[in-house]
Formats: sequence, structure tokens, C-alpha cells
Amino acid sequence: MINEGTFPVEPWHIRETRLELDILAQSESVFALSNGHVGLRGNLDEGEPHGLPGTYLNSFFELRPLPYAEAGYGYPEEGQSIIDVTNGKILRLLVDDEPFDVRYGELLKHKRVLDMRAGTLTRDATWRSPAGKKVAVRSTRMVSLSHRSVAAIEYVVEALDEFSRVTVQSELVANEDQPKPSADPRVAALLNNPLEAVAHEHDENRAMLIHRTRASDLMMAAAMDHVVEVPGRVEVTTESGEDLARTTVICGLRPGQRLRIVKYLAYGWSSLRSRPALRDQVAGAIAGARYTGWDGLLDAQREYLDEYWDSADVEVEGDPHIQQAVRFGLFHVLQASARAERRAIAGKGLTGTGYDGHAFWDTEGYVLPVLTYTAPDAAADALRWRASTLDLAEERARELDMAGAAFPWRTIRGQECSAYWPAGTAAWHVNADIAMAFERYRIVTGDHGIEEECGLKVLVGTARLWHSLGHHDRHGAWHIDGVTGPDEYTAVVNDNVFTNMMAARNMLIAAQACERHPDAATDLAVTTEETAAWRDAAAAVHIPYDEELGVHQQCDGFTGLREWDFTDDTEYPLLLHEPYVRLYPSQVIKQADLVLAMHWLGHQFTREQKARNVDYYERRTTRDSSLSACTQAVLCAEVGHLELAHDYTSEAALIDLRDLHHNTRDGLHMASLAGAWTALVAGFGGLRDDDGVLAFDPQLPDGITSLRFRLRWRGFRVTVDVRRDAAIYTLRDGPDGRLPIRHAGDTAELTTHGPVSLAIVPRVPLLPPPPQPHGRAPLRSTSSAR
Amino acid sequence: MINEGTFPVEPWHIRETRLELDILAQSESVFALSNGHVGLRGNLDEGEPHGLPGTYLNSFFELRPLPYAEAGYGYPEEGQSIIDVTNGKILRLLVDDEPFDVRYGELLKHKRVLDMRAGTLTRDATWRSPAGKKVAVRSTRMVSLSHRSVAAIEYVVEALDEFSRVTVQSELVANEDQPKPSADPRVAALLNNPLEAVAHEHDENRAMLIHRTRASDLMMAAAMDHVVEVPGRVEVTTESGEDLARTTVICGLRPGQRLRIVKYLAYGWSSLRSRPALRDQVAGAIAGARYTGWDGLLDAQREYLDEYWDSADVEVEGDPHIQQAVRFGLFHVLQASARAERRAIAGKGLTGTGYDGHAFWDTEGYVLPVLTYTAPDAAADALRWRASTLDLAEERARELDMAGAAFPWRTIRGQECSAYWPAGTAAWHVNADIAMAFERYRIVTGDHGIEEECGLKVLVGTARLWHSLGHHDRHGAWHIDGVTGPDEYTAVVNDNVFTNMMAARNMLIAAQACERHPDAATDLAVTTEETAAWRDAAAAVHIPYDEELGVHQQCDGFTGLREWDFTDDTEYPLLLHEPYVRLYPSQVIKQADLVLAMHWLGHQFTREQKARNVDYYERRTTRDSSLSACTQAVLCAEVGHLELAHDYTSEAALIDLRDLHHNTRDGLHMASLAGAWTALVAGFGGLRDDDGVLAFDPQLPDGITSLRFRLRWRGFRVTVDVRRDAAIYTLRDGPDGRLPIRHAGDTAELTTHGPVSLAIVPRVPLLPPPPQPHGRAPLRSTSSAR
Repeated sequence: MINEGTFPVEPWHIRETRLELDILAQSESVFALSNGHVGLRGNLDEGEPHGLPGTYLNSFFELRPLPYAEAGYGYPEEGQSIIDVTNGKILRLLVDDEPFDVRYGELLKHKRVLDMRAGTLTRDATWRSPAGKKVAVRSTRMVSLSHRSVAAIEYVVEALDEFSRVTVQSELVANEDQPKPSADPRVAALLNNPLEAVAHEHDENRAMLIHRTRASDLMMAAAMDHVVEVPGRVEVTTESGEDLARTTVICGLRPGQRLRIVKYLAYGWSSLRSRPALRDQVAGAIAGARYTGWDGLLDAQREYLDEYWDSADVEVEGDPHIQQAVRFGLFHVLQASARAERRAIAGKGLTGTGYDGHAFWDTEGYVLPVLTYTAPDAAADALRWRASTLDLAEERARELDMAGAAFPWRTIRGQECSAYWPAGTAAWHVNADIAMAFERYRIVTGDHGIEEECGLKVLVGTARLWHSLGHHDRHGAWHIDGVTGPDEYTAVVNDNVFTNMMAARNMLIAAQACERHPDAATDLAVTTEETAAWRDAAAAVHIPYDEELGVHQQCDGFTGLREWDFTDDTEYPLLLHEPYVRLYPSQVIKQADLVLAMHWLGHQFTREQKARNVDYYERRTTRDSSLSACTQAVLCAEVGHLELAHDYTSEAALIDLRDLHHNTRDGLHMASLAGAWTALVAGFGGLRDDDGVLAFDPQLPDGITSLRFRLRWRGFRVTVDVRRDAAIYTLRDGPDGRLPIRHAGDTAELTTHGPVSLAIVPRVPLLPPPPQPHGRAPLRSTSSAR
Repeated sequence: MINEGTFPVEPWHIRETRLELDILAQSESVFALSNGHVGLRGNLDEGEPHGLPGTYLNSFFELRPLPYAEAGYGYPEEGQSIIDVTNGKILRLLVDDEPFDVRYGELLKHKRVLDMRAGTLTRDATWRSPAGKKVAVRSTRMVSLSHRSVAAIEYVVEALDEFSRVTVQSELVANEDQPKPSADPRVAALLNNPLEAVAHEHDENRAMLIHRTRASDLMMAAAMDHVVEVPGRVEVTTESGEDLARTTVICGLRPGQRLRIVKYLAYGWSSLRSRPALRDQVAGAIAGARYTGWDGLLDAQREYLDEYWDSADVEVEGDPHIQQAVRFGLFHVLQASARAERRAIAGKGLTGTGYDGHAFWDTEGYVLPVLTYTAPDAAADALRWRASTLDLAEERARELDMAGAAFPWRTIRGQECSAYWPAGTAAWHVNADIAMAFERYRIVTGDHGIEEECGLKVLVGTARLWHSLGHHDRHGAWHIDGVTGPDEYTAVVNDNVFTNMMAARNMLIAAQACERHPDAATDLAVTTEETAAWRDAAAAVHIPYDEELGVHQQCDGFTGLREWDFTDDTEYPLLLHEPYVRLYPSQVIKQADLVLAMHWLGHQFTREQKARNVDYYERRTTRDSSLSACTQAVLCAEVGHLELAHDYTSEAALIDLRDLHHNTRDGLHMASLAGAWTALVAGFGGLRDDDGVLAFDPQLPDGITSLRFRLRWRGFRVTVDVRRDAAIYTLRDGPDGRLPIRHAGDTAELTTHGPVSLAIVPRVPLLPPPPQPHGRAPLRSTSSAR
């Protein structure tokens, strides 16, 4: 866990004031830079020490066999693993003959700052070498949001006190040594040295390495170029080999003199293009970067971010921790998606190798809802990516003897990579999550183009899947059996409420979309009999409800299962200490499941049902998944447990700044970081869109004095300023200057003429705040009034 | 599949009249010889061609890592695999300089006969070498039932037509080349060359090789000795190396002259004993074999088998196929268990490497019921083996956060080796199957010694497991959720009827045993509160029943699941063509589950329930497991579908003689072979013992004119001769000459004074015979009247 003091609370920066080597891997994730296409972990310039060296290209992966001691029909045979590609971050420094290494000599100062408005990571170090030479090193690193293939580093060395001969070795390194990723030698064997050299070239200041992967047969190129500024004589030479290119800069610095190097990096990869085409593409990118120049890249970066923050920023008064954390989350969500451009947005973005770099339902379920309101173009691209894998999903459905399309539980390229079907293939809900993301995008942006371009066939494919998966019983009720809902501690169940409701929604959405696009539907061989069958199944969907207890059953029979005995000895996460065979048939929940249904499909539950369900499920939810706290925050806020909602918001937002799940080293938790926005905006702002209207129902917890957020809705830009007693809505611009909304259940109209202030309708909880499982009370928000 | 004509119908022999190389692997399994300690596949004397070379020692295994692409808590990390040990079967023949190989020259005659009374495999071949020399080779092979460590081969070569120089190389070969067992190189890597040489020695006629396994650290020794008889000069030399010992016999034979070699083999292994101790043990065994001599071994073999057949034989008039097959099954069941002596009886005995040589619930569920009635000492030893693994079962239960003992789903030594928990650990019923085997043994043999010696603690451990696994609901009903019953196509379900009833039975049996042994129970810390809790749970056990349909539900909600669409295109076994994620939530059944409950716990169902349940489940059972047909035979017979029962009996009995499951090459199906006895004796004989009384209710199908079987009951030997109209019971001997039985529901008494003839009570089926899933009608019995 990262201590509270490690990153001091500041609104727009994540600052590290001294180097803590024991959390080096975590800080590498926190300080990762990415634009969704290229990702650089926050490794030190000189390459080591490191927790996990990491340079990633979105969707550049290697295949590996998935082993099964007992295989079964339909099990995926190949996995896809993101790989650490050619590292261009490395700038090694020698002071006289001694390498700058924070573990030797004396580190007099070491500060790192992630600037979330500038989009840069700056490092400021003062070091005395073992021989007593003192230098200051200041590096600034960026991955360009405006230039998709480009990263750049400004590296400045200053001699202090006395003359020093300074050597900087700027490198491209392929096939870096990796820390052993697991005890299993089979995994390590393949992922070490994943790159096969194809070509290398260099001239005085520049070099390029081209490699390919062995099994997935993808080719990549990495190039570097340098601008060197120094008073006096300097020697710059470059050499290259198969796995290494090195530019060496040597000069002498008198006290106060500085060597400044700007290193431009460009990356490209392709599964199709030829070596010359790829080489020229990357050479062009680096030439463009050099032409734009360091200051030009910085300016463009800030401009890109200004535009983003203008639509996305959330201001939280009263809780500076959450203020900092929600911006950190939004910054990384943007970094994961900004220039992904029809590639996957992975669960950990491009910040680490956790989950093999796979994308899950996190993308459509947690990240896209935020992007749809704040960066809709990025959301559209993510939807296009998913749609581009439809052929693979259809193939998978056929393999599984199903109709339509079965999207993968986890993947990079689109093929199913889940090797444990009860928490993979059986989690069919990913298909409805995807369908709903298309529909949400259409509702929120008003852009029907994506639906026409690619959404309709996804909606039809997923509706067909659901219809073939479910069945009617003798009495006409429609069931889906043998599925796993979001809660992975209760798997392979019958009639999971979340899944059933989402499936019904999916089929209805698809039927409506076919109505809107009759010709396109006909092209997909959709008949009115088929859409009628979807509507009929959706209308007949069975929703298990326990009349005795007055709560919904997460799945058929859930409320009759054995209760889990939470004690002082219970260790979390349970999955590391208890077998599935015990967890599954117990009333113990990993993550919001029924509670998530009440968020996404809130209009299908009464107010009392929500209150009673929250009360019941809160007591049984361990939040062993990072996807849980944000949803619990939203529903706790809705039913009036505002302080608990505040705590959950903290937990969602601080997941990586505090390493709450003890695996930030492997990469950041994009869904939870996005969930911080959701917790604030949907929780305390009460934002809902599930019946097609922009609706709010704001109310603040004691510890937050004001909450201001912005969002986009069908071409409008809206600012919502929530105070203790009133919410002030400002329509900044939009198509015709008038926007109907709902506030606390009543309709209202916003105009661009001026802000509208509407009184908060206080929420009175029906029930007292529920307790959590023993030992799982949430991180208490620091500004909480309790 | 093996054709009907491959093994002509004969009552006491399995005869192969010509060598069919395309079913060589299957015939190696069919002709396997074993005594439960040493097993030799029916490989040709000269070693090749072969399907799968196989020499096995019970419980001599190697460890191998179990790989998981996504691991989970409590997953076993190591598997145990039976290995092909030092092959002593090899006798290579050279005629002049040409090796006798059935693929070259001209095979003028090749017959093999398994004699089930003699306990020998004889081969009779006439061969003309490529150079035109003609020889007759006759070999007879045995694995001694009386001498546990010993096998022997009589090998006779006769020159025909003209003089030949004959060379016989008799060998011990360790680390034989294996056919590639799977496409996965990880599996093959470990099991090739599993033996590490420890020592080797030889003198003129004899040799010994000692090896050890690398990971499991077991040591084995194999020795051979030879007696050579030939007119004229003969040269016998022996040499030995790490993995090979060879005795070479060279002589000249004139037409009609014979070379006769008797090769004695002895095997031993230990995890504890030293190399010298093991060496001397095996040297002693081979000296004993030589002292007994070939004829002495043959006589002892026949004597052992006479004794067995006297208790076990079943005579089937009217259906010679079943007659042959049931003896074949009983012979192999004896071979798998006779001298296992506190080692596991594997699912395939010692006939092949299928299922890695593991023992499953097949042992207690299918094999021991037969042995208990026919060879009770072998049954007792098998129970002692299971009890000897109790410490491991207790450890496993602790690991899984359970009380008591959790016996493994599959194992050689006792550790859980199942790498797929939904059809492994979740199949908790294995524990009740074990408990019931102890109880059945006590009831049937009247021997309480095993219960005192080791059974009580097994009963208590398993009862504790069940009690910690189940729970009471709000209304006091007792449930077991998240389990897998016998049917592996409907896994991880709630309230599986078979499991629930067996668990209740297990707890009751344990409580009663504690009453019988109060002091021993106290030593196990059993209190009257604990036994009361067992009885209470057993009394409150929930048994799902569908009132609307009037049938039991195999598990909670089963009769509401989606029906499987069996069509012309359905391919069996389904598990090779459909994913679990589709199979589990459908009304499609791999094997008798509820139907098995009606056999084992028949007194808990009414006659009408049985009829209706059979009708319902027959239509949905694919018999994709070899454990199914025998149980379906028993229940079909009980509810009056006698012809269908006859067909299922054929299918169970002929499983390997016809290779019905297409995997006889990997070894024989011991449970199904044992099940042939059960189908006849419990099906047409109506034998039941589940309420503690020896009960019969015989009735024959049209195609069987008379059925005579023998069994042992509490020291009595009983013969039952079932005719069309009457059953004649003969009490051959017993403790006091009087035995109360039940016949067709009425009590009767047998005495040693003479046979008792009781009239058959015809069974009138309540319902017509049900159909099977499309394409799964059973093998029609050849003598069926239909």
C-alpha cells in the first residue's frame, strides 16, 4: 500500500517528493504516460532500478498456448499477451566514468511530478557521484496526444560545484530483461525475448530498430532522433545492432553549464504493412515530431488537455483527496483511450502487463460511460473497435453452438482468451454490456452514425445470442440458465437478475434499432418474426424475487444459499484464500451485481426495492473486485447513505494512488479510475440516462461542500454546480440553445441564456446505513464528517 | 470399434483367430494380464508392432505439474501418472538372421487365446521368414495370482520343414519408446524416460534392473530368470546395462525340434525400502517362482481361479455374447483387484494408461459391490487402501475450509489430482460412495472388523465433511449447494438428489457406527451433539421434486432447464462437440444420476416414482459415460422394461470386447465390466441390500432362458438359479445353515438341506418403454426377442 503522504494532495499534480524504492513498481504505474497507442511506464530514465520495465503499443501482442491439465470443448487454445516492446525511454548518464544510479553515490534530491494539465512527467534530481561530482538532472517526458506515434523526452544535465565530463547514452533497447513474472517457467519462457530482429539502421543522431513477433507475426518499428544543445565541444555518435541502438553524447560541463538533449521517439506497428512501409511511416513520424519541436509538442499537449478538461473536469470542494484522485483517474482514462483509435482499451490501459494487457467488459461498462460524456470521439472509436471484432464473435458463437455473436470475455485482438469458462465464457453479460454502450452512445451524443456504421449489426448479433441462450419454461417465463453475472463468487447460476435484465434490454434495443433501420435489418436477415421473438422474450424475462425477505435474488435461489461466516480470521480477497467450490454456493459477493443492475437499469426497480436490496447486498459484498466501490457509491448515494457513498467514492478514486488492491505495480485500474467520475457524477450528481432523458438528482455528503462537473449531451455542453441546497445548471452551448432535463424527478429546461438554479430535494433513507462484511468497511474518506 | 466376429463367442475364452493390426492397441487391453499388483498389456512377445507398450506396477507413478492458464485457490499443483515400467515381456526371435516380425515374411497362422479359467494368454503363430524358413512359435503368458510379484512366460519355438538356427533374445527394457500420447509437448516431455537407472546385475541366465522415478522418488526392481530346454547344443549368455538386460539363447533346430524357454519375471517397488532390500526381495521372488516351476505356477493359477469362479461365476443361457462378456468382465475385475492389497484399484485396472492410471469413485461405486459378493477379501483390501489415505483427505478438507475428510476425485496415491474442479472437487459424492462401500461390506460380509480397524474413522470424517458442506434454510430444510452429482453434464448445482440422499445416508451410517463403537467414537472426539446434528441434517435433507410433472428433479430446477435438441446431427459423446457452458444448463444427462440413486437407495422411492423417473430420465440420458448402461439396466429391469434392460446389459458387458466407447486402446473400463455382473444380478436377479436384507426379485428378459449366479453373504455361499417361472435358491454352506432372504418382497428362509424354489412374480410396467435421445438407442442384444 502507498502511504497517504507519498503523493501530497495537490489539485492538478501527482508529486513524489523523494524516491521510495520499495514502491518503485507502483510509482511506475502511477507515472505512466500514454496516448492509447503508445504507453511508457514511469521507469527511471537510466532504466534501472526498475519494478517492471514497460513500453507498450496498443494491441501489439504475442500469442502463447493456454495449457489445460484437463481440456474441454471450446476452450481457447491460444492466449494473447501484451509485450514489452523496444524501450526508447533510456537515457543513461555517466558523470566522468561513473554511471548515474540512484542506488549509488548520494541522491540529494529526487522529485517527480505528473502534471495533469501539461500532460508531462518531470523528474528533478540532484546527485553526488561516489567520486563526489555533483550534477542536477531534469528530465521531462511526454507521450504526445496530438502526434499519435510520438513520445519525447527533454533531458537536461547541469554540472554543479565543479567541472565534469558528462556522457549520455540514449538508447533503443529491444528484448529487455524482465523480472520473473511468475513461478511458472512456461509463461516466462515465451515472453522473454519476444521480439525477433528484422532490421536496424542509424546515422549520426538517429536510429531505428525493426522487429517482429514470432507467433502473432506483427511487425513494429521504433525510432529515435536527438537535438543536442551544450556550450562548448560535444561529440555525438550513433550505432545500431539487432536489439540495441545507442546515441552517445559526450561533453564537458563547467559548474552551471547545461547539456540539453531532446529525444524524439516514434513507434509504429502493423500486421499487414511491409517493412519498408513501416520504416517510412515511423521515419515520417519522427521527422514530424522534430519539425514540431519540443515546445510545439508541449503546446499541442496542453491544448489537447485543455479541451478535454473543459468537458471532463470535476471540481470537488471539501475533499482535496478526491479532487486530486478524480483528476488522476480522468487523466489516465484519457491516456488509455485518446488515440486508441479502433484498438482495445485494456483493463489497465497501457500502464502495465496486468491481466496480460486484455480488455474486458470494463471498457464498455465502466470506461465508455465516462468517455461518452467527456470525450465522445474516443468512445466512438472504442465502439468501432469492438464492432470490428464482430466476425470473430460470430465465429465464437458458432463454435459454441449459439446464434449471433459471442464477444470475448478477455482479449486484445478479439479472440476469446479466457481459460476458465465459469468466469469467462459463462459471463455472457459482456455482450449486453457492449450493446448497451452502443445505445448509451446514441442516446447521450445523439449521433446515430455509429449505429448505422457498425452498431446495428452488433445489436442484432448480441440479441440473437441471447435469444438462443435463453428459453421459455412451460408457463411462458423466459430464463437464462448456467451463466455468471458480474459477481464472480457466485458463478454458473440460473436467472442472474443483472444478466436477465441486460439481455432483455439488449433484445429490445436491437428490435428498436431494426425498426429505425429497416433496410439494414433486412440485409442482416432480420425478420419481423425475429424481432417479435426478441420482444416477447424480453417481456417474459424471469426476475427472481424473494417475497419473504422482500429483496431481489441476485440469481435463482441466491437468498437461500449458505451465509458466509465472516470472522476476524477472514482474509481478503477471498479468492486467494478460499476455493471456488466453497465460494460459489454461498451468499458472498465479490462485486456489485444486483446493485449494478439497479444503477444501469434503475427505472426497473422501485425506490423501496432499491433501499432493501442495497441493505441486503451491502452486508454480503466483499468488494474483492476493483469494479465494485464506484457502483456501491452510486447506489448508496441514491438510497440516501451519502456518507457511505462518500467513502466508496474515495475507495474507487484512490485505488491506485494508495495501491488499495496491492497490485498497482502491474498497472492501473482503469475501470475504478473511471468509476471515480461515475461515483461523483452519477452518485452525488444523480446523473442517469437509462430512460433516454438527461436526469439529475444531486445531493452532497457532509464532507463535500460543492461539486462542479461538466458533460456533453447531444452537442450541448453542460456544467452542473451542486451546492448544499441547490444545483446550478449552465448550458454553455448547443444546437438550439434549449435542453430539457430532469431534476430530482421533475422536468426542467436549460437554455444558454443563463444558469438555472434548482433546489436539492433531500433524500431520506428508508433504512439505516448497512454494515459491510467483517473487516471490509470502506476506506474512510478523509473529509468525512463522521 | 471391434467387429462382432473378432472374438468368436465361447463361454470361457477370448479367442483371436487372426492378427488384426488396426485393432492391435485394443487387443492389447483385452489380452492384458494382471494380478492387481503387476500388469502386462497383451503386447506381442517380440515387442513390436505395438499399439501401446505397457508394463505397470500398481501405484508406481511419476508426479507431473498440473498446468493452469488461470489458476485458483485449492487447485492441485501436482498430478500423478502411471508409468510404463521395465518391460520383461520381450522375447525377440531370430530365424537364422531374420527377426520374427509379423509385418514381414508370411504369417501363416496367428491365434491368441485368453483362457479365463487357466488365467493365461496363449499365442500360437506359424511364420515363414522372408528367406523362406518356417517356424512355429507358441507362447503362454501368465501373471501369477498366487505369487504376487511374479509373471512367467513359456516360449516354444519349433522348426518346421528345414533346419534353422534360432536365436531368442529375452529382455528387460526400461524407458521404452512411447507413442506420442498427446499433442501437448509438456505431457510427453515428462513421461518419456521416466526411470532413472540405479543398478543392474546379471549372471548367466538371470538379470535385474533397478530404477527410480525422479520426482515421486519411488524405486523399483525387475528381474528375469530362464530355464532353457532344447535338444542339442545351446548357448545362453546374459548381459545387462542401465536400461537393458538381455539373455541370448542360440541353438539349431531340425524340423520338429523345439526350443522351450520358461522366462520367470519378478517385480517389486517401494517408496521406503533400500536398494539392497528391494534387490533381495525381487531376487527372492524370482527364486520362489523358479522353485515353484512353470507347471506349479499354472496349477496355482487355476486353483485360485477355480475358487473365484466358484463364488463369482454367472451362467447366462440364451445369450452367449453376454455369457462370454460377463466372464470376461469378472476375470478382469479380479485381475485388477486380486492382489492389489492396499493399493488403489484404478478405473482401468492395470491394462493401460487411460485416465493417467487414476482410481475414481468407480472403485467403491461399481467394482467393490461385485467384489464384496464374490471376492470379499479383495474388497476388504481395497477399503483398507482408501482408509490409509484418510490423513490426506483430512488435509484436503482443511485446505478447502471444511471439516472432516475430503477424499480425492481422482488419484493414485491419495492426493487430489483433478485439475477441473467442477467435475472433480465439486463431485463430493465420492465421499458418500466410499462410506457406503464400507457399510455395504459390513452388511454383506457380516465382518465388522474392517469398520473397527479403519472404517469408523472414514465414516466419521465423511459425515463431518457433509455436515460442514450443507446448511439449513430458514424453514429448517437441509441443503447442499454448488455440487456435481454423477451426471457431469449438469455440474455445480444445488440439491442434487443423489448427493443429498447419499450425504444423508453417510451421516446416518456414521451415527449408527458411532453407536456401535462408543469408545472409538469418543477417541475421534465425536459427541452425542455431533451425531444428533448428523441425524437432524439427514432427516431434514431437501429432495427436489417436480409436483407438476410427478418426477424427482435431478437437482434443484432441473426439470425447468432448457431441453436439449437431439437431432440427426447430434454427435456423441457430446462433450467432444459441445461446450460445458451449453451442456450444464440443459436437460441433457451424461450418465445415470437420479437413476443411480434409485438403485443404491431404492427403498427411498415408491414404485410409481421409479417408473416415472425412469421414463423421464431415460429420454434425456446420452450414456456418454461408461458408468451408465449397467445402472440403467438395473432400473429398467426393476420397472419392467426387461428387453431394454437386456440391451443395456449387453452394452455394459461388451464395452471393451466391442470397443463401444472407442477408447479400449487406453485400457479396459473396469466399472462397466463389473457393471455387467450388476446388470445381471441386480437387474434380472433383483439383488438388493440397501435395507440390510439379502433381497431378490428375479425376472428374465425374453432372450435369456436361465440365469445362474453365485454369491457370498455373511459366510454363506448362495446359488441363485433363475428360470422363466421360478427362482431356485441353494444355500451351499454357511454359519448355521439357515439364511433369511426376501424374494419379490416376501421373506423366505434358505437352508443347507436343499434348494428352495420360489415363483417369479411377473413385473408389469406402469409405463411403456421410453425412447432414448436420438441416435442413442442401446446396442441391441443379439439374443433379444424383439
